[in-house]
Amino acid sequence: MSAQPHVVIIGGGFGGLSAAQALKRAPVDITLIDRRNFHLFQPLLYQVATGSLSPGEIAAPLRGVLSKQKNARVLLGDVVDVNPETNSILLADGAIVKYDFLIVAAGAQSSYYGHEEWRQWAPYPKSIEEATEIRHKILYAFEVAERISDPVSRASWLTFVIVGGGATGVELAGAIGEIARQTLRNDFRSIHPEEARIILMDGAPRVLMPFPEELARNATEALERLGVQVRTGVMVKEIDREGVTFAQGTTTSRLDARTVIWAGGVAAPPLGRALATSAGADTDKSGRIKVGPDLTLPRFRNIFVIGDLALSLDRSGKPLPGLAQVAMQGGVYAAKSIVKRIKMGRELPPFEYFDKGNLAVIGRAAAVANAFGFKLSGLPAWLVWAFIHLMYIVQFQSRVLVFIQWALQDLTFSRGARMITGTTTTDFNFNNEIAAQRSQPNAEITQPAGTAYR
Amino acid sequence: MSAQPHVVIIGGGFGGLSAAQALKRAPVDITLIDRRNFHLFQPLLYQVATGSLSPGEIAAPLRGVLSKQKNARVLLGDVVDVNPETNSILLADGAIVKYDFLIVAAGAQSSYYGHEEWRQWAPYPKSIEEATEIRHKILYAFEVAERISDPVSRASWLTFVIVGGGATGVELAGAIGEIARQTLRNDFRSIHPEEARIILMDGAPRVLMPFPEELARNATEALERLGVQVRTGVMVKEIDREGVTFAQGTTTSRLDARTVIWAGGVAAPPLGRALATSAGADTDKSGRIKVGPDLTLPRFRNIFVIGDLALSLDRSGKPLPGLAQVAMQGGVYAAKSIVKRIKMGRELPPFEYFDKGNLAVIGRAAAVANAFGFKLSGLPAWLVWAFIHLMYIVQFQSRVLVFIQWALQDLTFSRGARMITGTTTTDFNFNNEIAAQRSQPNAEITQPAGTAYR
Repeated sequence: MSAQPHVVIIGGGFGGLSAAQALKRAPVDITLIDRRNFHLFQPLLYQVATGSLSPGEIAAPLRGVLSKQKNARVLLGDVVDVNPETNSILLADGAIVKYDFLIVAAGAQSSYYGHEEWRQWAPYPKSIEEATEIRHKILYAFEVAERISDPVSRASWLTFVIVGGGATGVELAGAIGEIARQTLRNDFRSIHPEEARIILMDGAPRVLMPFPEELARNATEALERLGVQVRTGVMVKEIDREGVTFAQGTTTSRLDARTVIWAGGVAAPPLGRALATSAGADTDKSGRIKVGPDLTLPRFRNIFVIGDLALSLDRSGKPLPGLAQVAMQGGVYAAKSIVKRIKMGRELPPFEYFDKGNLAVIGRAAAVANAFGFKLSGLPAWLVWAFIHLMYIVQFQSRVLVFIQWALQDLTFSRGARMITGTTTTDFNFNNEIAAQRSQPNAEITQPAGTAYR
Repeated sequence: MSAQPHVVIIGGGFGGLSAAQALKRAPVDITLIDRRNFHLFQPLLYQVATGSLSPGEIAAPLRGVLSKQKNARVLLGDVVDVNPETNSILLADGAIVKYDFLIVAAGAQSSYYGHEEWRQWAPYPKSIEEATEIRHKILYAFEVAERISDPVSRASWLTFVIVGGGATGVELAGAIGEIARQTLRNDFRSIHPEEARIILMDGAPRVLMPFPEELARNATEALERLGVQVRTGVMVKEIDREGVTFAQGTTTSRLDARTVIWAGGVAAPPLGRALATSAGADTDKSGRIKVGPDLTLPRFRNIFVIGDLALSLDRSGKPLPGLAQVAMQGGVYAAKSIVKRIKMGRELPPFEYFDKGNLAVIGRAAAVANAFGFKLSGLPAWLVWAFIHLMYIVQFQSRVLVFIQWALQDLTFSRGARMITGTTTTDFNFNNEIAAQRSQPNAEITQPAGTAYR
């Protein structure tokens, strides 16, 4: 048996992986546990959802990332509970792992604010599977519209609603605008994809609330140039198979839309609740666990909670946002703190988040950025965005493919990852949809007149 | 309505797409119908199954490929029947499409020779979904082996059987050999992936029967260098959840293997049977439809059958093999034949297949090729293989990504597309598997001793 302290890290996202890597030369044995065998570059998931990138291009196998780090081991496993009294965790398969230090970086999952039934009609791009499902929904919508002739139902298939005006929602709406206006422009013979309606809804008075107002205005203008309608101050009342019901002020309206994408809030995963209960820790209403200034639990100083699962307050008492940067800095802090305690028995000064800024991209080579105190829009913001994202990706997997793919797409306007594969969880059946939309059974599909063959 | 003859093409594989493209300047309207929205570069599917390439890298959206061809339209639809008397086809959604000329290029599907129940334990890399499932099976096997300690069951998780010694089987076995010996070499802490047993079985006296004997010998040696055992003259009797039972001569043996991959035969899809019945055409035992020397049905000269679905004889009376080259040349022939009949009312001379040779690749930069009368092995064969495959890919989607990815992998020995996503159709449950394999409930996973942290 090794005599070194055992650091167990739950989660191979930005926080967990940063912690593991920061412990590379530390006198500890590390076990990183994740349910998935890969690290996912979540900020680019929306590009998988919109067919720009393949899943493989934004994921790095955890074993590959850590294969050369001799003090680290990766376990594929689903942590279901933590017992802080015995310093052990329980996996879903029944195994127990003991730790000396525990870093919980279990992230967040999508939240439908108590309306779980909306999930089946409005997926959230939070996992590879959900992003792929959204890609299928978008592509299928155009395919169904091409096959049916009733103008009303065709319009509802060509209406795309994105609920949530944060960075994910803005980026998704911009990408769908590009798909309709550029990527698919010449691909159909019966419909004009550029007639698609794309509506971005949010309950707040404007999009991109964490950004300065000027940048949110620039983003709205960039979206409108791509044909996206931005509706703010809107409360979604109902999402079903055929559309969205929403209130704006005192009016309630209905919008027929066969493709609705959720980019709303997030909440803590079940492990968060289990840990809060067993460790007697406080949580906020979305389930985040309150940590002290050193990111540990008040009653168990050898348990760190970092990233999206942590409710960590900055000096002004405001909670830190759920961003990759926050998680990564938290991971490095936890690692340093463990080393200092092992080597010197001393504490680090409290964690301080260094805010490098905020970024959102709106379609091809346009973005808004609030970086290092500068407000940027358009191409300069896009370049900053591309550079920062590539730096992070390269760090984990030294892949130049993503950049080459973007460059090719910008040259050719095409999107490579446009396949509809597998089955969607919304039990979509193309043949039934087409059959249901047709006015008469066994109608003949005639050739469009010469002009339709553009 | 357009007055031009209407050519309907069923299938967007090598044959159907070649036919559509060869009709680019012809005075016809083309409708290409496929169940999927993409063309799939099937010869590289095994690289998806073994984590070298992402699905998006070997697929091209059909609409994208044909978007600039003004006389062509793409329909997403599942053709279930053909009525040659009324010159019409029926889609699964109930729609009818009429044609003047029909080109049936519906391809082949995997066949388990009457043992459909083997499919659940031994997937065949014939579709994106199946290739992805195989990737998951291979990666999960190593993950389970890492988690369990019983040496007998660990060995069965580290045993990989490939049934079928054709090009697909040889290429799969070589790639799994590389994964075990190179890609995963440093990735685990409890197991040594290079101890995996990889067994390639075939009923024939040697692998790669369509190749000259000398090349098959070279291939076998290249496989053995990668740690693959080649067993020929073997008849598979049973495949189940835990392994394979097979006969060799008069002995019946059992091999415990949790990963079995089928690379056996193919058979015609259901549409083949429907067409043969309604058109009164002959078929062989795998369901291929017998066509005349001009690739049309004897009783319906406006129906061409090309590619894997066609039983087409060469001058010596031997059936043409199910290769991309045969399908593509058949597609071009059908297109030219239609043009000649429309413009001049005359017939082309009979179809003749020009055999450019055969290729199979065995791991990194090794291959065997029988090209243009030359027998090649090793690096020269690999270069020919890479060049030919890239030419075809570029033709359809002008992507340089595949080549770059290969180059990176050859430099780094890594495989980018190594994620386990979604659920496999074999209802694999990692947690249950681990729990079932463990000798005692809630056993503790201890840290391996220092030496295990390589």
